[in-house]
Amino acid sequence: MSSQRPLNQGNRRDPWWNTYSDRAQNLRESEVRSLFSVVSRPEVVSLAGGMPNIKDLPLDKLADSVAELVRQHGAQALQYGQGRGWDPIRRDVCEIMAKEGIDGDYENVVITTGSQQAVDLITQIFVNPGDVILCEAPSYVGSLGIFGAYQADIRHVAMDHDGLLPDALEAAIKQARAEGKAVKFLYTIPNFHNPAGVTQTMERRRAIIEICDRLQVLIVEDNPYGLLGFSGDPLPALQSLNPEGVVYLGSFSKMFAPGYRVGWALAPHAIRDKLVLANESAVLSPSMMSQMTIHAYMQEFDWFAQVQTYRGMYQERRDAMLESLEQYLPICEWTKPSGGFYTWVKLPAGLDAKDMLPRAVTGLVAYVSGTAFYADGQGRDHLRLSYCFPPPDEIREGVRRLAEVVNREKELVDLFGGVELTPVQGLKVDAPDAPRSQYPAQDKD
Amino acid sequence: MSSQRPLNQGNRRDPWWNTYSDRAQNLRESEVRSLFSVVSRPEVVSLAGGMPNIKDLPLDKLADSVAELVRQHGAQALQYGQGRGWDPIRRDVCEIMAKEGIDGDYENVVITTGSQQAVDLITQIFVNPGDVILCEAPSYVGSLGIFGAYQADIRHVAMDHDGLLPDALEAAIKQARAEGKAVKFLYTIPNFHNPAGVTQTMERRRAIIEICDRLQVLIVEDNPYGLLGFSGDPLPALQSLNPEGVVYLGSFSKMFAPGYRVGWALAPHAIRDKLVLANESAVLSPSMMSQMTIHAYMQEFDWFAQVQTYRGMYQERRDAMLESLEQYLPICEWTKPSGGFYTWVKLPAGLDAKDMLPRAVTGLVAYVSGTAFYADGQGRDHLRLSYCFPPPDEIREGVRRLAEVVNREKELVDLFGGVELTPVQGLKVDAPDAPRSQYPAQDKD
Repeated sequence: MSSQRPLNQGNRRDPWWNTYSDRAQNLRESEVRSLFSVVSRPEVVSLAGGMPNIKDLPLDKLADSVAELVRQHGAQALQYGQGRGWDPIRRDVCEIMAKEGIDGDYENVVITTGSQQAVDLITQIFVNPGDVILCEAPSYVGSLGIFGAYQADIRHVAMDHDGLLPDALEAAIKQARAEGKAVKFLYTIPNFHNPAGVTQTMERRRAIIEICDRLQVLIVEDNPYGLLGFSGDPLPALQSLNPEGVVYLGSFSKMFAPGYRVGWALAPHAIRDKLVLANESAVLSPSMMSQMTIHAYMQEFDWFAQVQTYRGMYQERRDAMLESLEQYLPICEWTKPSGGFYTWVKLPAGLDAKDMLPRAVTGLVAYVSGTAFYADGQGRDHLRLSYCFPPPDEIREGVRRLAEVVNREKELVDLFGGVELTPVQGLKVDAPDAPRSQYPAQDKD
Repeated sequence: MSSQRPLNQGNRRDPWWNTYSDRAQNLRESEVRSLFSVVSRPEVVSLAGGMPNIKDLPLDKLADSVAELVRQHGAQALQYGQGRGWDPIRRDVCEIMAKEGIDGDYENVVITTGSQQAVDLITQIFVNPGDVILCEAPSYVGSLGIFGAYQADIRHVAMDHDGLLPDALEAAIKQARAEGKAVKFLYTIPNFHNPAGVTQTMERRRAIIEICDRLQVLIVEDNPYGLLGFSGDPLPALQSLNPEGVVYLGSFSKMFAPGYRVGWALAPHAIRDKLVLANESAVLSPSMMSQMTIHAYMQEFDWFAQVQTYRGMYQERRDAMLESLEQYLPICEWTKPSGGFYTWVKLPAGLDAKDMLPRAVTGLVAYVSGTAFYADGQGRDHLRLSYCFPPPDEIREGVRRLAEVVNREKELVDLFGGVELTPVQGLKVDAPDAPRSQYPAQDKD
C-alpha cells in the first residue's frame, strides 16, 4: 500500500515517480506494441501485427450510409447513449451470435469500446490482486496485459492441437485452491486461437464445460475470430453449452472493422448488471455514432457476405503462409489454422525467438516472439506469424526472409551451441496426463 | 482479499455472487443514471441531465464531411490506431487549449474515450485502495463514482462562490498526511463547476497552485466546459500556471458533440507515458473513425464560431433559469453561473432534496438531488438544476412546477417540522479558516 511509502520526494525526470499505484507498476508496453515503430517502415514485411485487412470494404457505399445516418439521425448519433449500449445493436449482436449456436437475450448484452475493454471490465469486476486467472499456454498478449495490470496470478494451462487440455485444467484449478487461492475465471479463445492458431474440438469443449461447471469456475470465452473459419460451420460456442457459466466476448473488429472500437459481452444477468455499472464508470456510454454506424451497416449491407469474402481472402493468405513455411522453413514446426489470423511456429532447438528478433528486423521481416504470450517468461522457442494483413506475395517474401535469418541462426547454434532454455514450469508436473512439451506443435502435414 | 472467502457456493439469482472483486462491490448506479427512465418520459421537464443541446449542429455539412472522410481515408479510419491517439487530433487539442493560455506539447496529449475515461485512467495509475483523493464539496458525480470504484478515500474540500477554499485545501492535505495517508491528487473543476455552477477566481487559482506545489500534491484539472463561458475570455487554466504539477482533462463532448466519445488528457511527460500504457491496456486504441471525424470537423468548420453559438444559446437558457428561479422560487438560494450547464440550489431549511424527488417527478419535473455529488451522504439540502438541454420555455415551466413542489413541501415542514439533517462532517472541524456551511450559496443578486 502506498500509504506506507514515504511522502513524495520526486526526482528530476518525474516528480511523481513514487506516487503511482501498485497497479501502474504492472503496466508494461506489450512486445507487440513496442514493435510498431520498426514494423511500420515500408521496407519491412510485417508478419507481426494483428490488423485485419479491410482494404476491400465498399468505402463508397459506407460513405453514403454514414452520411445518411448523420443527416437523418445525427442528433441522436452525436449524443450520449446508455451505458449498456444501444438496443438495436444489442439485438444485432444476438443475430451474429446465433451463427454459433448462441440463443442470447439482447438484455444480457453489454456494448463495449472494443472487446479489449470487455476483457478489462470483466477482470475489474472479478479480480482482486493475487486472485488466479487461468488461461491457455500461450494466450492473447492484450488480455495478459490486462490481467497483469489487475495484479492477477496468471496461470497458463497447457494446450495441444485440439485446444486446452482438460486434465491440465482440472489439475490447475485444484492446485490453486489447494494453495488457498481464489480461481476467478478461465480465459479461453476456443476458435483460431491467438497466437496458437488452433481450435478446440467439440469433445474438448464438452470436457471444459463439464469441469468448470462441476468445480464452479466461470469461463470467459473470447471469440473475435469466430466467424472467420475457412471451412464448414463454426463449432458451437462454449456459451451455448452452458449459458449461466460463460461470459462470451465478441467484436466487430474482425468481421467488419476495428476503427469504430465496438465489441460486446454476453453475460449471465447478474454479471451483466455489474458490467454495465463498470462500463458507465469507465466511459459513461459507448459511442452512439459508432454503434449507429455499425447498425446501419448490419441493416443495409449483406454483412454475412462480407464475412464470407473475408474468409476467402484470409484463407488464401493462410495458404500462402503454410506453403512458404513448407518451402523455406522445413526445419521448423507450425500449427495449421483452420481460420483466424495466426500460426504458431516452433523454432529448432537452441534458437531464441526474442534474441533473434533484432536480426530478423535487420533482415526486413518482423514477427512476435513467443514470450509475448506468456506471463512467466516462457515462449522463447516459439514465434507467432500473422497472415492477416500482408498480401500473399508479401507473406511469401516475408517467410523467405525469415528463413534466411533462422537458417543463419541455426548454423551459429550448430557451431557454437544454443541458448539454455529454461525448462517449462508449472502445471505439467501436477497434471499426470499433460503432454511433455508445453505446446506440442502440430505435425507439418 | 477474496482468497480468504469461502469457495463459491452461489445462489439461485447469481451463482457468482461471492466471487466478485472488492472493487465491484463499490460500483453503484449513480443517482443521475438511475433517473434516466423517468426523465425520458416526454411529459417530464428534465432539469436533471447534463446532455448538451446539439440540435443546431449543421448536420448536412457534417454528413458530407464524414462521407468524404470515409471515401478518401476509409482504410485508415476503419483500422486500429495507436494507444496515445492520432497525431493530427493531438495537435488540434493543443490549439483548443491555447485559448486558455496552455502552451502544451502534442506529444504530452493522450486521446481517451471521452474525458470520463481520462478520469478513470488517471485514477487507475495513481490510486491504491485507501489513498486519499481531494475534491470539491460538492463534486462531479461521474468522477466520484470512479474514485469510489478504485476504493479511494474521497475527501470533500469546502468551496464558496469563488471556488475551492485554499485554507480548507491545505488543512485537508495536512490532516490526511497526519493520519499517515497518501494524498494522490486534488480533483478540481475550476470553470462553471458541475454541480456548483461557480468559477475559481484568478486569486484562488494562484493560491491553489501555490499550496499544491509547496505540498507536492498533483492537481487533476477537469475542464469540459472551459470554453463555454458567457462573457469575456476564459481565465488561465491551472495547467498554464504550473505545467509540471497539473494533469489537464478536456473533452469534445460540450464544445462539439459527445456521440464520438473523444476526450483527452495533457500530462507531464512521465505521467503521459503511464496514461498511454493504461489506455492501450483498456481499449488498445481510441476510435480512429471518431478521431478522424473530429479532426475533419476542426479543419473544415469554424469550430470556434460553433462554440460561440453554443455560448449564446446556453446563456439564453441560463437567463431563463435564473429569471424563473427569481420569479417562482424566492424561498431558495442559488448560484449564478457565468458559463456551463448548472446552477446549485439550496432548499429552505428542513427540506430534503432526495426525499422530495419522487414528488417532483409526480409533478412532472426532474432534478438531481445534491446527495449525488457527495461521497459521504451530504447534500440533502441542495439540488442541481441544469439548463443545457430544455429550451427556455421548458426551463421556465420546469422551474414553475418545481416551485409548486417546493412550496408544498415547505408548507408541510412548517406545519409538521422538517427532516433532521445530519450536521456537515469532516474538514471544517480541522480547518480553522473553513466557512461555517459546507457550501454557502451565493446571494441571490
